[in-house]
Amino acid sequence: MAKIPHRLYLTEEQIPSQWYNLRADMKELPDPLINPATGKPVVAEDLYPVFCEELARQELDNTTRYVDIPGEIMDMYQIYRPSPLCRAYSLEKALGTPAKIYYKFEGNNTSGSHKLNSAIAQAYYAKEQGLTSVTTETGAGQWGTALAEACSYFHLPLTVFMVKVSYQQKPFRKAVMETFGAEVIASPSDTTRVGRKILEDNPSTGGSLGCAISEAVEKAVSTPGSRYVLGSVLNQVLLHQSIIGQEARKAMDILGEYPDVVIGCAGGGSNLGGLIGPYMQDKLLGKASPRIVAVEPASCPSLTRGRYAYDYCDTGRITPMARMYTLGCGFIPSSNHAGGLRYHGMSPILSKLYHDGYMEAVSVEQTKVFEAAVLFAKNETILPAPESAHAIRAAVDEALRCKETGEAKTILFGLTGTGYFDMKAYENYMHQSMSDYVPTDEELQKGFDSLPSIPGIQ
Amino acid sequence: MAKIPHRLYLTEEQIPSQWYNLRADMKELPDPLINPATGKPVVAEDLYPVFCEELARQELDNTTRYVDIPGEIMDMYQIYRPSPLCRAYSLEKALGTPAKIYYKFEGNNTSGSHKLNSAIAQAYYAKEQGLTSVTTETGAGQWGTALAEACSYFHLPLTVFMVKVSYQQKPFRKAVMETFGAEVIASPSDTTRVGRKILEDNPSTGGSLGCAISEAVEKAVSTPGSRYVLGSVLNQVLLHQSIIGQEARKAMDILGEYPDVVIGCAGGGSNLGGLIGPYMQDKLLGKASPRIVAVEPASCPSLTRGRYAYDYCDTGRITPMARMYTLGCGFIPSSNHAGGLRYHGMSPILSKLYHDGYMEAVSVEQTKVFEAAVLFAKNETILPAPESAHAIRAAVDEALRCKETGEAKTILFGLTGTGYFDMKAYENYMHQSMSDYVPTDEELQKGFDSLPSIPGIQ
Repeated sequence: MAKIPHRLYLTEEQIPSQWYNLRADMKELPDPLINPATGKPVVAEDLYPVFCEELARQELDNTTRYVDIPGEIMDMYQIYRPSPLCRAYSLEKALGTPAKIYYKFEGNNTSGSHKLNSAIAQAYYAKEQGLTSVTTETGAGQWGTALAEACSYFHLPLTVFMVKVSYQQKPFRKAVMETFGAEVIASPSDTTRVGRKILEDNPSTGGSLGCAISEAVEKAVSTPGSRYVLGSVLNQVLLHQSIIGQEARKAMDILGEYPDVVIGCAGGGSNLGGLIGPYMQDKLLGKASPRIVAVEPASCPSLTRGRYAYDYCDTGRITPMARMYTLGCGFIPSSNHAGGLRYHGMSPILSKLYHDGYMEAVSVEQTKVFEAAVLFAKNETILPAPESAHAIRAAVDEALRCKETGEAKTILFGLTGTGYFDMKAYENYMHQSMSDYVPTDEELQKGFDSLPSIPGIQ
Repeated sequence: MAKIPHRLYLTEEQIPSQWYNLRADMKELPDPLINPATGKPVVAEDLYPVFCEELARQELDNTTRYVDIPGEIMDMYQIYRPSPLCRAYSLEKALGTPAKIYYKFEGNNTSGSHKLNSAIAQAYYAKEQGLTSVTTETGAGQWGTALAEACSYFHLPLTVFMVKVSYQQKPFRKAVMETFGAEVIASPSDTTRVGRKILEDNPSTGGSLGCAISEAVEKAVSTPGSRYVLGSVLNQVLLHQSIIGQEARKAMDILGEYPDVVIGCAGGGSNLGGLIGPYMQDKLLGKASPRIVAVEPASCPSLTRGRYAYDYCDTGRITPMARMYTLGCGFIPSSNHAGGLRYHGMSPILSKLYHDGYMEAVSVEQTKVFEAAVLFAKNETILPAPESAHAIRAAVDEALRCKETGEAKTILFGLTGTGYFDMKAYENYMHQSMSDYVPTDEELQKGFDSLPSIPGIQ
């Protein structure tokens, strides 16, 4: 066996040409989406006014195991993929751990994160269907940037509703999206009914992801030739993100390595769901049993403290309902919380796998997250996004446990992106002006009180 | 011949293990550095108070063709190198050109630029000598970030004098350097004699690179165990940056390609000098004659409108004098000018090669530079640094000429870094609030009036 390199890049030919659909191997499927108007399971036609048709089909396709990636999407993947599988030699040394730490780094593209993998697919299918524009929302800005990039490439006009507090705090994120030709609107805005309503009720609100989703959906359904696209949570997004896990698996196989534990940060689940694909498949098929760990912020703990229940995907309650781990669509994370991972729910696929015991979850507090981020940056020369740093924290903790026990475990984690646009949070951490926040049970109860109550369902 | 991939990564084993010293193949050497105190050529001992010893030797070594890269430096290179050689298929298509456009992309590391290649070497040699701290200056911030990263890796304390106007306009650059543990001081500052003098004369000055150099040198020579390091202009820096050109050459050779023209942006010359190495060697040895083109901003045109003369490397006139193309050490670029490439002089090696006809130079105006940057970003999904975009502009112009003539030239350019911290300039460009500036002959004359006049030399 030759020495394992610091970074292994597959060749262009080795980029997977199919996405992997986890649902095809699940023993039990996630419960169906429910149409709140009828109380019945959603069918593809219900989704056509909101999603483009191929994506609506992918959303509901529980059986096709592998989906061919269209050539036009492969063309754009090849501009920035494959992403490297990295061995964290320097971090291992700093920790003094016998563990072998690997990470799949998705930050080497302008969007700075893995979000581009699904943005390209969604922009492509929208263009293919002859749509003339799409809308979306963005919080921290990674998804908006990725979609702006993809829409620019496919010459598709895009409107992004950006959570107002991010819009104000991250003017440069907005500038990147505008550079790629997107229209960026601070949400809540007076351009939609739901936005005007929210502003009327609470004129000084900084907005929320759920509220921006409501605005983007309204704009899409009220604009001819337009549809809505979403960067996480959805089954279709996990499908597209499976490129991460498949590349990681191929690279690990080349190195003759198999992870004892696979770790990913989890907000809506797009990265984690993509990363774990082939390893979760092994687990579902009984071929192997690696530990799979979701890491979420202690301030927005949908898996570790949420309910497994039907809920709306947005604050405005205009989307279908999904059965998932949720804090309630009325839950608003503390403004103290830096970075993304602030969604009230969790991917229905991941929720089901967690519910059925295929996955673990841990929550971490943000000062410990940034401590790990700085340690990682100093050793691996990559400045991680705060979201990604949640996974780093858990990987470091795992490696430190190995140091205690002397076990040489193989750890694989997902490094979703870079933190160039999150320097304010780093600054707060460096200057000791960052604090932790964990919601009380009473605060969580308020969120649970916002869960919908549908006769015959829950 | 297999299809040429979008991005070609060499393997870890293929990373060159030696730097290439262009001077060893030059027919005529650059004129020696002059010690202003004695009027005599500088010897290594003259430099020891300022530079660490090995770097002083490298600075004056005109004969060693290949220099072994120490293992500790290779270890850190392997964390982020090799950098990819990219084929700009999408840009070519957008331009409708028969030209083949390649670029060597150095932006995939946290410092966001090629500067890390020399920062690692300089931090390593300083540590090796047992020094206890180093100082430097930074303008746009790429060099400061790279050095902070390298010093953090080698546990070497660093003080960065950051040009005040950048310090104020780019707080996040400062935050990155602080994250890596560097002390960052706005220049001019009251921490040095030269800084206090400048502030006394002009309390509201935004500072300049030359002035920050003076402060960093003063701090280094007045602090026991400290030395000064510099990210461009110097011969040692071109030596370390030769890793870029050697990797590019190896990758082009694998593809069976040879460039008709090699293009790089040029401020102090670190990137261009590194990129062109093996191709300039061919030219010096009469083996081939690719065109080699330096691209500089019209607002700071040292090669295209400067004088080939002895000048100080800093505004404070405390460094040795170098014979180079210069606008005069008193030249201050217009504040209208975005991004880096604002140094008054040019690498003595590149100056000599240009003077002797081995290189061409063009100057470009910044709105045309940003036009090319946006076109590139939309097609290649990399948001380029404004500095790098100077090279893109020239490469695009070359490709458009090929479109006119029908020639299928092979173009190679250096994409030095990413523009994440330059969004203010992109914003100005997008909102049409960016203008061009070309100094008048009278304005340039004022800079030339600041050139030193040394009896017996000039």
